[in-house]
Amino acid sequence: MDFFDNLVDYNIDKIYPSKDALVKALSGEKKLRIYLGIDPSSSRIHLGNAIPLRKLAQFQSLGHQVILLIGDFTGMIGDPTGRDAARVPLTHEEVLENAKSYQKQASKIINFSGKNKAQLAYNSHWLAKLNFEQVVKLTSHFTVSQMLERDMFQKRLKEKKPISVHEFLYPIMQGYDSVALDIDVEIGGTDQTFNMMVGRELQRKIKSKEKYVLTLPLLEGTDARKMSKSFGNTIDIDEDPSSMYGKVMSLKDSLILKYFEMTTDPPINELKTIREALTKENPINVKKKLAKTLVTMYHSEKEAQSAEEEFEKVVQKGEAPEKVEEFEFKKADLDKTYLYFLTETGLVESNSEASRLAAQGAIVFDGKKVENVREEFSPDKNEILIKAGKRKFIVLKFV
Amino acid sequence: MDFFDNLVDYNIDKIYPSKDALVKALSGEKKLRIYLGIDPSSSRIHLGNAIPLRKLAQFQSLGHQVILLIGDFTGMIGDPTGRDAARVPLTHEEVLENAKSYQKQASKIINFSGKNKAQLAYNSHWLAKLNFEQVVKLTSHFTVSQMLERDMFQKRLKEKKPISVHEFLYPIMQGYDSVALDIDVEIGGTDQTFNMMVGRELQRKIKSKEKYVLTLPLLEGTDARKMSKSFGNTIDIDEDPSSMYGKVMSLKDSLILKYFEMTTDPPINELKTIREALTKENPINVKKKLAKTLVTMYHSEKEAQSAEEEFEKVVQKGEAPEKVEEFEFKKADLDKTYLYFLTETGLVESNSEASRLAAQGAIVFDGKKVENVREEFSPDKNEILIKAGKRKFIVLKFV
Repeated sequence: MDFFDNLVDYNIDKIYPSKDALVKALSGEKKLRIYLGIDPSSSRIHLGNAIPLRKLAQFQSLGHQVILLIGDFTGMIGDPTGRDAARVPLTHEEVLENAKSYQKQASKIINFSGKNKAQLAYNSHWLAKLNFEQVVKLTSHFTVSQMLERDMFQKRLKEKKPISVHEFLYPIMQGYDSVALDIDVEIGGTDQTFNMMVGRELQRKIKSKEKYVLTLPLLEGTDARKMSKSFGNTIDIDEDPSSMYGKVMSLKDSLILKYFEMTTDPPINELKTIREALTKENPINVKKKLAKTLVTMYHSEKEAQSAEEEFEKVVQKGEAPEKVEEFEFKKADLDKTYLYFLTETGLVESNSEASRLAAQGAIVFDGKKVENVREEFSPDKNEILIKAGKRKFIVLKFV
Repeated sequence: MDFFDNLVDYNIDKIYPSKDALVKALSGEKKLRIYLGIDPSSSRIHLGNAIPLRKLAQFQSLGHQVILLIGDFTGMIGDPTGRDAARVPLTHEEVLENAKSYQKQASKIINFSGKNKAQLAYNSHWLAKLNFEQVVKLTSHFTVSQMLERDMFQKRLKEKKPISVHEFLYPIMQGYDSVALDIDVEIGGTDQTFNMMVGRELQRKIKSKEKYVLTLPLLEGTDARKMSKSFGNTIDIDEDPSSMYGKVMSLKDSLILKYFEMTTDPPINELKTIREALTKENPINVKKKLAKTLVTMYHSEKEAQSAEEEFEKVVQKGEAPEKVEEFEFKKADLDKTYLYFLTETGLVESNSEASRLAAQGAIVFDGKKVENVREEFSPDKNEILIKAGKRKFIVLKFV
């Protein structure tokens, strides 16, 4: 696929005002200023976040100025996007901590060094300085009905759930980022469309400048809902190789092609091959190829190879992995419940997880399935292999 | 009437949370802080504005701390109250100029000197200093639906007229005045109820303090609509004696009793006498008493007496007043139109006023009614008395 077509066609939902206008601007002499805003309420980048970052990287490789904007000011307020109620605000310290970690991970995708290095910006630098009069002037550019058009607010109105007045300020604040950074192009997920269009409006009203907006499709997570930290269904780019591999393998088969398209950079011919393979082969083989590709992208080919071998051994053949962590207990502990060992070792995170796994037959102590985790465990050996779920093994040693 | 009853019963629309609660607070030891907010979009105080000022004076005479708050910051934005569209903002210089003149006039009603002198405050002192984060925190106390409950916004929604987002900030700003001044009581017209209640809410939320709100009824102007500078129907307290007297005389008879009650301080027995007189006598005599009372209040008894005598002479008997201003013209001007002399002397303010008065038979040149003001005026004398409307006379001298 031609690189330029890829830029404006691939993984794009919509371009405002139009694709043609953007193509024209990109073909000019001018170095464009392009940004992606980051909500620093999380410190981790998942494969869904990586989609706009990878789009940013394409602009960077064309020689444009890319900017990663940390919403440290907006983050303290909390974007109401996709929330039914207002969020609990973060402290500024938490926000900065998250931003630091975010940049480190983002550097796997965009370049923060060299001649055309990506800029990092913090919106507290201009938003914290605005006074009441300036806020009033900014808000005077928008009507209440324009704000209420936002789908999320419509939903809340219908459900008779409250909308706080300060939530109207959020899109306007975020829109002002475009003005302060004097932006030509903004990239974001489709869930950010409203906020990005507010910025487009402000650029036109305050700077009489056309701001292009690229909306990118959203990715589904391991439970097939929108990938989001709050759903606990993310695959993070700093996930360790075997966990990343395993999570990809847990995806629904129907997502395999979409993941190839949206999270990797497959040559166009390969997408055809994949599409064909999905109709002929066992999908698990195609998914293994996806998992290996992603681990290679964010780690290395070697680690991808090991993750695959481990997966085949542990999950596909049901054997214990090569390196199994050992936990020592005293012999006096022998009368404790299964639950005690599962939670003490951290093999399960909660009593309810333990019960759920047991009900699925996924708790195995010394080769035997445990049905009731609240029963006592009284082994006759000093070393016991225990297993919870498909891929978690540890050894209990009684000394 | 007992002074205390007068304070909480007379010229009161509603008291929040209740009259009993306010009476209790007023009976305590504590000196209360009571304020009236002034929209400095006008420099003149009319009889409608004087109602809450006179209520403030009652609190002052009881020894409480009264504060006249000049909305110099809010004035720059423009209160949307009673407007169908957002106002054109004033400059800060205009606002301060108006405030200065306002205080001078207000000192006819409340005391700005002595032991318990009234304070003058400007809300720019705290509102201009608020930053974006503080604004966001203030706005987070209110929901969009709470704001939209305001009758004016409901009206606009129904008429599909836009509401600007910054108009939501206005009541919140004004409400914050109560917090910044640490207020116990606020007084205002019924049209300010919403804004005053927002301040009551903020005092409770931020300072856990009960703020009493007194709403006062609004007064009708010379055209029987709500008295308002924008309707041009006001009777201002610094109006010169004969103009004030004349404007009161132009009121509808049905407003006489209401004006006695709301704009003067009649002993309770006198109100009865007035009510009886209105059923028995020619209302013009009762209205003359009202006019004389008001001119006495804002000027002096002597000036009230002269104003009355002049009114009787000019309007009731149709004679020219004693002192008539003279304007000199050259004999070469003799061929000009009636309109030329009417507008050059300032006797009428516009061509349309001249035409309207002529149509009513109220333009008289040298004892003769002028029907068409665009005709030429060719007198055979060197001194001509001309008259426009009931009370305006001047002399033209041709030299």
